[in-house]
Amino acid sequence: MYYGAAWYPEHWPAARWDEDIRLMRSAGMNVCRIAEFAWSTMEPTEGYYTFDWLECAIDKLHSNGIAVVLGTPTAAPPAWLTHHHPDTIATEQDGRLAQHGNRCHYNPGSITYQKYARRIVEQMVKRFGHDPRIIGWQIDNEYNRVDYSEDTGRRFQAYLKDVYGSLDALNSHWSTAYWSQSYSDWREIPIPIGPHNPGLMLAFRHFATRVWADFQRVQVDSIRAGALSSHWITHNFMGWFDGFDHYVVSKDLDLVSWDWYVGSGHHDYLSTGVVHDLTRGLKRQNFWLMETQPGCVNWSQNNNMLNKGEARCMAWHAVAHGADALLYWQWRSAYGGQEQLHGSLIGADGAPRPFYSEAAQIGSDIAALNSSLDLSKSTPVNDVAILHSYDSRWSINAQRHNKSFDPVAVLNQYARPFAAQNIGIDVVSAEAALETYKLVIAPAIAVLTETSEAEMAAFVERGGTLVLGVRTGQKDAYNALLPALQPGRPLLRKLAGAEVAEYYALDDSAPVSLNLAGTTSEGESKIWAELLRPLDDATKVVATYGEFNGWLDGGAAITVGPTNANGGKVIVVGALLDDDAQGELTEWLAQIASIEPVWPDHIEGVEFSRRRFKDSDEELLFIINHTRSAQDVNTAGSLDPATVNILTQQPVQGTLHLEAYDVAVLKINIGV
Amino acid sequence: MYYGAAWYPEHWPAARWDEDIRLMRSAGMNVCRIAEFAWSTMEPTEGYYTFDWLECAIDKLHSNGIAVVLGTPTAAPPAWLTHHHPDTIATEQDGRLAQHGNRCHYNPGSITYQKYARRIVEQMVKRFGHDPRIIGWQIDNEYNRVDYSEDTGRRFQAYLKDVYGSLDALNSHWSTAYWSQSYSDWREIPIPIGPHNPGLMLAFRHFATRVWADFQRVQVDSIRAGALSSHWITHNFMGWFDGFDHYVVSKDLDLVSWDWYVGSGHHDYLSTGVVHDLTRGLKRQNFWLMETQPGCVNWSQNNNMLNKGEARCMAWHAVAHGADALLYWQWRSAYGGQEQLHGSLIGADGAPRPFYSEAAQIGSDIAALNSSLDLSKSTPVNDVAILHSYDSRWSINAQRHNKSFDPVAVLNQYARPFAAQNIGIDVVSAEAALETYKLVIAPAIAVLTETSEAEMAAFVERGGTLVLGVRTGQKDAYNALLPALQPGRPLLRKLAGAEVAEYYALDDSAPVSLNLAGTTSEGESKIWAELLRPLDDATKVVATYGEFNGWLDGGAAITVGPTNANGGKVIVVGALLDDDAQGELTEWLAQIASIEPVWPDHIEGVEFSRRRFKDSDEELLFIINHTRSAQDVNTAGSLDPATVNILTQQPVQGTLHLEAYDVAVLKINIGV
Amino acid sequence: MYYGAAWYPEHWPAARWDEDIRLMRSAGMNVCRIAEFAWSTMEPTEGYYTFDWLECAIDKLHSNGIAVVLGTPTAAPPAWLTHHHPDTIATEQDGRLAQHGNRCHYNPGSITYQKYARRIVEQMVKRFGHDPRIIGWQIDNEYNRVDYSEDTGRRFQAYLKDVYGSLDALNSHWSTAYWSQSYSDWREIPIPIGPHNPGLMLAFRHFATRVWADFQRVQVDSIRAGALSSHWITHNFMGWFDGFDHYVVSKDLDLVSWDWYVGSGHHDYLSTGVVHDLTRGLKRQNFWLMETQPGCVNWSQNNNMLNKGEARCMAWHAVAHGADALLYWQWRSAYGGQEQLHGSLIGADGAPRPFYSEAAQIGSDIAALNSSLDLSKSTPVNDVAILHSYDSRWSINAQRHNKSFDPVAVLNQYARPFAAQNIGIDVVSAEAALETYKLVIAPAIAVLTETSEAEMAAFVERGGTLVLGVRTGQKDAYNALLPALQPGRPLLRKLAGAEVAEYYALDDSAPVSLNLAGTTSEGESKIWAELLRPLDDATKVVATYGEFNGWLDGGAAITVGPTNANGGKVIVVGALLDDDAQGELTEWLAQIASIEPVWPDHIEGVEFSRRRFKDSDEELLFIINHTRSAQDVNTAGSLDPATVNILTQQPVQGTLHLEAYDVAVLKINIGV
Repeated sequence: MYYGAAWYPEHWPAARWDEDIRLMRSAGMNVCRIAEFAWSTMEPTEGYYTFDWLECAIDKLHSNGIAVVLGTPTAAPPAWLTHHHPDTIATEQDGRLAQHGNRCHYNPGSITYQKYARRIVEQMVKRFGHDPRIIGWQIDNEYNRVDYSEDTGRRFQAYLKDVYGSLDALNSHWSTAYWSQSYSDWREIPIPIGPHNPGLMLAFRHFATRVWADFQRVQVDSIRAGALSSHWITHNFMGWFDGFDHYVVSKDLDLVSWDWYVGSGHHDYLSTGVVHDLTRGLKRQNFWLMETQPGCVNWSQNNNMLNKGEARCMAWHAVAHGADALLYWQWRSAYGGQEQLHGSLIGADGAPRPFYSEAAQIGSDIAALNSSLDLSKSTPVNDVAILHSYDSRWSINAQRHNKSFDPVAVLNQYARPFAAQNIGIDVVSAEAALETYKLVIAPAIAVLTETSEAEMAAFVERGGTLVLGVRTGQKDAYNALLPALQPGRPLLRKLAGAEVAEYYALDDSAPVSLNLAGTTSEGESKIWAELLRPLDDATKVVATYGEFNGWLDGGAAITVGPTNANGGKVIVVGALLDDDAQGELTEWLAQIASIEPVWPDHIEGVEFSRRRFKDSDEELLFIINHTRSAQDVNTAGSLDPATVNILTQQPVQGTLHLEAYDVAVLKINIGV
Repeated sequence: MYYGAAWYPEHWPAARWDEDIRLMRSAGMNVCRIAEFAWSTMEPTEGYYTFDWLECAIDKLHSNGIAVVLGTPTAAPPAWLTHHHPDTIATEQDGRLAQHGNRCHYNPGSITYQKYARRIVEQMVKRFGHDPRIIGWQIDNEYNRVDYSEDTGRRFQAYLKDVYGSLDALNSHWSTAYWSQSYSDWREIPIPIGPHNPGLMLAFRHFATRVWADFQRVQVDSIRAGALSSHWITHNFMGWFDGFDHYVVSKDLDLVSWDWYVGSGHHDYLSTGVVHDLTRGLKRQNFWLMETQPGCVNWSQNNNMLNKGEARCMAWHAVAHGADALLYWQWRSAYGGQEQLHGSLIGADGAPRPFYSEAAQIGSDIAALNSSLDLSKSTPVNDVAILHSYDSRWSINAQRHNKSFDPVAVLNQYARPFAAQNIGIDVVSAEAALETYKLVIAPAIAVLTETSEAEMAAFVERGGTLVLGVRTGQKDAYNALLPALQPGRPLLRKLAGAEVAEYYALDDSAPVSLNLAGTTSEGESKIWAELLRPLDDATKVVATYGEFNGWLDGGAAITVGPTNANGGKVIVVGALLDDDAQGELTEWLAQIASIEPVWPDHIEGVEFSRRRFKDSDEELLFIINHTRSAQDVNTAGSLDPATVNILTQQPVQGTLHLEAYDVAVLKINIGV
Repeated sequence: MYYGAAWYPEHWPAARWDEDIRLMRSAGMNVCRIAEFAWSTMEPTEGYYTFDWLECAIDKLHSNGIAVVLGTPTAAPPAWLTHHHPDTIATEQDGRLAQHGNRCHYNPGSITYQKYARRIVEQMVKRFGHDPRIIGWQIDNEYNRVDYSEDTGRRFQAYLKDVYGSLDALNSHWSTAYWSQSYSDWREIPIPIGPHNPGLMLAFRHFATRVWADFQRVQVDSIRAGALSSHWITHNFMGWFDGFDHYVVSKDLDLVSWDWYVGSGHHDYLSTGVVHDLTRGLKRQNFWLMETQPGCVNWSQNNNMLNKGEARCMAWHAVAHGADALLYWQWRSAYGGQEQLHGSLIGADGAPRPFYSEAAQIGSDIAALNSSLDLSKSTPVNDVAILHSYDSRWSINAQRHNKSFDPVAVLNQYARPFAAQNIGIDVVSAEAALETYKLVIAPAIAVLTETSEAEMAAFVERGGTLVLGVRTGQKDAYNALLPALQPGRPLLRKLAGAEVAEYYALDDSAPVSLNLAGTTSEGESKIWAELLRPLDDATKVVATYGEFNGWLDGGAAITVGPTNANGGKVIVVGALLDDDAQGELTEWLAQIASIEPVWPDHIEGVEFSRRRFKDSDEELLFIINHTRSAQDVNTAGSLDPATVNILTQQPVQGTLHLEAYDVAVLKINIGV
């Protein structure tokens, strides 16, 4: 496992570097990311390249056993470039050019910018591409910009022509007869700013995705053309950020990484595990935590510090969900610059800040782990998948209907009780292959393509349990209403044996009576409710609405469709349940899909998660006390008494005692 | 009475139309509005007109007994037009052009746009002007845009020159010596954006009104030149919307209509009746409800559905206040387009949605009504008028002094207790003739013209009771302070026998002691209070302020001026009373002005409203249960036992039982 | 003492002027400010000057014993000027030009504008510079605009070149290697809009200061070149407004004045005294209250009226804190114009408004004072100084770290308990000489220069008590982190004997145990907390943090550094204490610094403040009852029984009785 930080040698005199590296070593670090904002240092004027300083820094790191991830610096173009080539600067929604100096002020679709980006990357590859001290490359940094220039407008029109072929097709898919929007010339089509035609809005998101994929491809090609095959390529994404379709953009990468910041407040493991799962799902493989906060950030409304011990929990929580590396951002703040006050390990005085002590403890943990196994050979393996779709999020967020309807919150609503019940989940694309799962949930997958339909139907056919949440199956890939009631697609409607007679944005909570496992309980639907109409005699209604608005009263809230020969079935959930009822639903779903939790007992605030070694019966069991109190875990009957806590090398016998924010990592054999 | 929906045949293949029309018939519909967003379908490229589809749709409607209202499509110009003629696109406040595709993106003052608008209307008139299947025309849709282009700036300057004649006059009316604003050239005068000189701001509102009147006139002239005289012309306004002076713009129309949407939440009949009254007051005649929501909308923060039964109450509530027609918007949503998720009667699957059943019940009600009488021959007739003035609203809203001072809320504060006490009101222009009323209320009529003064004085002279609310009579028609204390105009000051010594924006509620009808009660003034100073020995103080800020303490809050030979008097109300005190004030006003309620008993949530037949002693009595519980109305002694509920054809004897959201329509003879 | 109002004769016919002046006299007024918005009246078209009306107005004022302050009219350029010279109009952040007519719409850095400004001022000086009826000049009005034009961008670059000398120096001071910001050409440097590099942001504030100083200098030079030496020059500032460094801009003025408005709500003397103190500290001399509200304003969210009597308290509160004059804004509102509804003394009808009676009472007070002494020979003299720094406010406000961290609120937090404990304070520049004080407090002086360091160290050396608040000493003059932990500068770190090991933005309150004067008490730190680390054996910890986030727990919150031979010491306060604890801290600080309050007893809401006569043992004692209840002050033992209340000419014997909002002004001899 890799452990380290982002380091900016270009901010400091070379005479300081040895001390920085000494302190990194002393904290147990073995990797360092550098250079990703150093363009103006690497190419101070056009065509004049200075890499000696970087060579020297890499050498010092390597000599001290620290591997290097090299960043391409394109997230922050130098002033000479934007000054001489204003077409490389991004245009804001209001038509103004972005300012120099706040990074990400470039237009990723600019041909000029791509030319300069290629040049600097080629030069870096020429110098460091064959350097075995480098283990990988990070392209750019946290892609996020959308450009609104006229030039981008023309590219968008060309993109649409390419995708739709004819204006007739486009007009038809977008229903442009509505409000007299019909286009008779590609040049008439605007970049949508603010609410607009749903088809146009979704198409522009697809275009923005294409822009990033193309921008990235330029650099990927340059690196692959000149670098060692051992050099992997990554980009650091930003969790739930939805500026582009991450499934598309991550295709060209070898490895996905992300930047995890809490910002204000504190870490809530029930909500953050799913972001790790999302990132792991982008390529369905382990990921790197390329940046995470050393105590606090500087960009939030209130940049409070994490509690002492909290960062250690977060580190192992990330590992438990598939992280193979962890890097703090940043090692030390420059004296100036926008992030002077960001958390760091080293202070303005050049000495360790209080947080350094906790980082050093984590370093020591990791050293213990690395000395006993190869973490990267293990990965989380789960029976449950929750589907995720950028198209659906864009579609819904543009027309929430109830302003509180947040598609990410709906996904979380499904994910949290699984985490609380110690059941691991995957989060995968709504178009992903589903062969390995027992239970698949499609929460608010509004845009439901034929590919998804086919995958879902095959999954049910094989005996899987498929849950369709609210708003699932309302739209096609062009963001147009499907010409049938939800779940919209014919195979799913048939398998579900039910349809959504009507959907209701709620101004108050609607009562719901559940009768899931033979007993009855009362809950509520909040924000949204769908009135289900059974279409098949075999369909069972397992929850109904109470008296509410006259329309829902007495209607079906949850249905279970006919069970096929392999035990497969489709459950339609029309309610957005309150937490207690959602917990009940989750237990019931786990039960009917025969899913075992990672750990049999529930201890409030204590996480139990697993990674499995490939082709092996061995697993790592992570037990993380996310609370500020000590916790005891009774392992009798659940663990082999010889099991050892890798972090302490102490055997776990009977009761495992965890201090506040304490962690245990156990290697277990599930074949036993 | 007309009943129907807005239908967009251009969104659907012609093969579908018969089924739509069958379903309309089945819901009892007899009118349909079409074509008002179909420009790009009617004129797909410049000068190429395609009306055959529309001819066919009209024909199918007519064959099924459905009358047609034809909309001119100018609210949504086609893309070819805005693309080739950017001067037709509206300029936003920030100087950017509006985007194509969100409708209302045109500049109504553009000469080019008016030319194209005239052409398409002329073509429609050429084709359908002599068609007796058409009953009327709707021009454009919900006028609302203000253009900020330089061209509009020049037009505004020309307008000012036209209105003021000389810069000296303008400088004087606007007090431009203040802040060195004096203009020495018409070209120096800006379009005001944000707060500016009150004279300039009001003048720009007048100009915006002129722009809409001129824009509309182009189309009115085109239609009148070529259409049958039986074809009436309307426009669908938007309730309290104040983008222009509706009294001016409605002058050229035959009929006023409006679009009533609840948005989030539910219908409150105490506040909505007054909007119907406002619309009826624009031309002082019945109106059409051209659009109303079939359950829910899509553009609000939370698009909840109306309760089952609520729409039926709303329908009859509108009729009771003067609606002669009711059309749902819309029949069915296109698969795409910005309003995919708006309420409709038909779903994406082409079948009736749940709301359709309620619409059909209303259709059945209306059929019962139409079979027994001609609704359009009746109209609400009232003894009370509340004055309304766009100038005053603009004047106050630009300088609220207390941010909570909303002139519409003040009007509502007067209107609501009348509705609660079953007393019908008219809402008419502050410059309207007042001959028919017993009681007239001028709430926050800040801009008080000489015309108003003369009408009001004559009304009092004839024996009327005139109530002057806070802020009434502070400004002249140029938004300048009148050189006398409120009520500002000399005749009114004399009749009132009192003046406003000082006005106070309140940060807390000021206590008020009322002594209206011999007994004393305690209330509060909120948001605002005016200290009245009697000027005449005959003036009586009927309410005083308690201890508050040292200035108001013990001062007069309500005065009654001297009563003239005909019993006429002016009451000045300096307080914005709390609801209870306002209720008391209302009862007292009704009593001194000898006004009888429509129904003697008050039943919380049950509305009693009347329409009177012309030249007849017959009236329609509407009894509407706006509550979710059943209600009993004791009619003994109030109604002839032979009275029949037109909707059920059952006689009303003794107790009239109304289910939740139930309605009764009774024909009564007030001569009896 | 001067007393008067702002009067706009140009709004009214000359025939009215005598009546206005008669009413001023009748209210006891002896000064009038005129002409500061009369450019379009004085120069109606370019080069045509009309001063006769002004001459006449001045003459009428003088004949009635009213002195004149003449305003230069540059805050509101005439329309002909901005119309013909658009380069004189300010450019907004979004690149648009400001509109004419809302004043302050000019670009103060425009060479063209400065040319026209010089011309009108020179013409005024030519006409009135030798006029002894004039006592002083006010330049412009409430400087506030920042221009964002490209021209200003070029000036800013030239300014930077002038200040930094080389790009290397600039790049180094701003750490531009960070985010690849390095500049290789001065033309690459943008005007910062929104968050940007801290060095750039602070430099732009310095530039904005320079622009105003230069703009003002043009007028100062014109006046000094042609006016009598008895004519002083002032500008009316706006309290806490931070658009430029007021210490720099006030250097060229003879006298500082400010405009005090409460806006919404009521006066809180504990918070407003410090604004007077701030203004007094700009030049460390008495000031004028050039504008204050006659009851209410018109620009606030809720323009409520001050309570009857409140304005009188405010008047004497201002005098007690160093005001030598008081002028109401405005005498009377024009019929039109943006401030129609602003408070005034005369109504739209030309007669006194209710507030006039209170103004007349104040006028009568002032006449009593003026008849017994020369107020201007006295000034507040205090032992306590609180330091204030625009650089620090800009630095912190750009990076609050906790959004609730308001540097002005922190200053107030220190100032309020002194006011409550009847201890007068000065507020002076963080770079001011500190020779006269016993106690100096540096609250959140983030930017701490070498000049400050030297002054502070010398102050401590002489025996002073220096308090360093949170965030003090983190940055250098370029807004870069100092390369040492706070208090950053070596002399201060040594004297403090402590450093800030870490700073914490707090999401909750952290407990603090204080042990200041031998007893222990419990308090809280809110918003922020700094963990102190003693560096010297002699350093004492007098407050510690309780259990909170694991990092602060048990750490030092307040330290007292070693006491030197003269009794000097540095106290570091790492906590932002709650009000009670701050009160305790204040008492303790006063005690250890041997500071006596103005009055021994504390009476809630009653202010005791003093002005001392130069070279004399005589002082004025102001006793102001800021409450709405009568208050009794026991003077026995504290005052010579012969002491007379100047306002009533009654002796104060035993108990001084003050009615609600009542005031007493006593002349006392502190030599006694």
